[in-house]
Amino acid sequence: MSTSISSLGERALITRLHARLEVAPAHVRTGIGDDAAVLLPDRGMQTVVTTDSLVEHVHFRRDWTAADAIGHKALAVNLSDIAAMGATPRASLLSLILPSDFPLDDFDQIVDGYASLSKAAATPLVGGNIARSPGPLVVDVTVLGSVRPRRLLLRSGAREGDELFVTGSLGAAAAGLALLGESRDRTSLTPDELACIERQERPAPRLRIGRLVARVSAASAAMDLSDGIADAAAAMAAASNVGVVIQAAALPCHPGVAPVAARRGLEAPDYVLRSGEDYELAFAVPARRRSRFLAAARRAGQVPVTRIGHFERTLGAWIEDADGQRSPLPAGFDHF
Amino acid sequence: MSTSISSLGERALITRLHARLEVAPAHVRTGIGDDAAVLLPDRGMQTVVTTDSLVEHVHFRRDWTAADAIGHKALAVNLSDIAAMGATPRASLLSLILPSDFPLDDFDQIVDGYASLSKAAATPLVGGNIARSPGPLVVDVTVLGSVRPRRLLLRSGAREGDELFVTGSLGAAAAGLALLGESRDRTSLTPDELACIERQERPAPRLRIGRLVARVSAASAAMDLSDGIADAAAAMAAASNVGVVIQAAALPCHPGVAPVAARRGLEAPDYVLRSGEDYELAFAVPARRRSRFLAAARRAGQVPVTRIGHFERTLGAWIEDADGQRSPLPAGFDHF
Repeated sequence: MSTSISSLGERALITRLHARLEVAPAHVRTGIGDDAAVLLPDRGMQTVVTTDSLVEHVHFRRDWTAADAIGHKALAVNLSDIAAMGATPRASLLSLILPSDFPLDDFDQIVDGYASLSKAAATPLVGGNIARSPGPLVVDVTVLGSVRPRRLLLRSGAREGDELFVTGSLGAAAAGLALLGESRDRTSLTPDELACIERQERPAPRLRIGRLVARVSAASAAMDLSDGIADAAAAMAAASNVGVVIQAAALPCHPGVAPVAARRGLEAPDYVLRSGEDYELAFAVPARRRSRFLAAARRAGQVPVTRIGHFERTLGAWIEDADGQRSPLPAGFDHF
Repeated sequence: MSTSISSLGERALITRLHARLEVAPAHVRTGIGDDAAVLLPDRGMQTVVTTDSLVEHVHFRRDWTAADAIGHKALAVNLSDIAAMGATPRASLLSLILPSDFPLDDFDQIVDGYASLSKAAATPLVGGNIARSPGPLVVDVTVLGSVRPRRLLLRSGAREGDELFVTGSLGAAAAGLALLGESRDRTSLTPDELACIERQERPAPRLRIGRLVARVSAASAAMDLSDGIADAAAAMAAASNVGVVIQAAALPCHPGVAPVAARRGLEAPDYVLRSGEDYELAFAVPARRRSRFLAAARRAGQVPVTRIGHFERTLGAWIEDADGQRSPLPAGFDHF
């Protein structure tokens, strides 16, 4: 039987966690171990801050997902919010609420999954806390970032005529979750199906393109797709006081989506509109900035971007089929 | 039967929460409602950040404590960490993990308790998230603050010969919890006992004295008493590479403590050494700064401060009785 965390106190667990992290970079004046962390100022920058949590049985199941993926994803979903602001992450805090019989090996793996992305994204862990849970595992993360005042990307900047672009492909995370629910045996899955599970478990926040698009002012608004493209398009339109139309045929559906959707009697685009958690980014791009936007996407490591619709004067959020027939966008995915 | 939060989605709950808050001050460029919050820089300042959570059945019980006290305390314990750094809070984030049958009235009260302290401490709520819990209520809070680089109070600055001061009185929060466990009927309690329960439920973070002591450089180190004075004294000594001695007779035991301690066969000072959650502050004060320190305490609204011991060269953490006999400090209170 494996050791549980109950054999250690909070301080011993923090020491153990600390030992698994990289040494903090110079802008972290005081990291883990005091009443609060202290960061040196980033001259001329504004501070961006976001928090999000993963809750066992709501956002993940421990019997479906490796512990390191839980650590990775808890940080990734926050980095995605930072990316959507056009900001650069600087530091993170991790609050772990652990069942008392939680295996120490899983604790280590959560920390390792977190630490690995934290290193890759230059977002050092500078503080947090560990508490006991009488129920589910809860992983709550806060990320601080910085952004140059005039480079900030809000949801509310979209204008009539702007084009709606999305990064990467859609529906993979939802299809991955469905596949996890259908079978725990991964050996029989196709590469496309495995890629869907990978997207569900280890989404890659789009930090580079967010920052580059912001730096060259190539977009008027941006938002991440935590709750899906239908939600993001509608939220950007509402915040910007314009309408939005998505062309169903233009949606870049991940190749693993169609078979999963078909088993539910849906076309891939309909499935994609109801799915979330892809952690891609949506951008509103003024037509005159399109080539600048595409150049930024190339410079960000050849990130694929697709024009899927546009913003217009008439309020509302619509999906348009190949015949030009419009129907209201579905409500999208609700984590809650 | 009262309405539960399950009748609303996450977005409706956030809108409801938002409506119960004050309008955010000018340094909040973007508050609730975008992918992340954006704060204007505080020129010349360093950023201080801390996070802490309250977990039902671990840190509180809903049948013992009013919901508004839970909201208050979740913010207060974080503000106490900011105070211990000598910093000024600027913004906060609130992550609520709610059981699906959670009463909407209690949701409103948690927000109101939070909002009331948030207003009093000028710490606007700028973001957060709401998720479902399959088990306990979890309230996770992050507070950002700022501090002038040379004014920062760390745990590690104590020197041989420094005096150990503590604010207010000790043991009240633990006695309050004990009283809640003994009886739910508050009508039969004395004013001292009621004050203990108030300390347990609505601790008042020592923001003003923390900031003033830091501003006049009257202390070499500070820490808050979330885990009690024994823990704080030992942690400050260890971080500063010195020893510490506390005089048992000098401990400012709250008047409500003695009867509770007696029912457990303890003297008040012994009870106080094993108790936590008072959220007072401990300061290491160089002897030549004592009058400056006392003046700062007076200016901070006549905060009572008591010299309870000193730091010395020989490593270790000791409690000294009236005859000068030393024994090791007990381990203190462990939230975990």
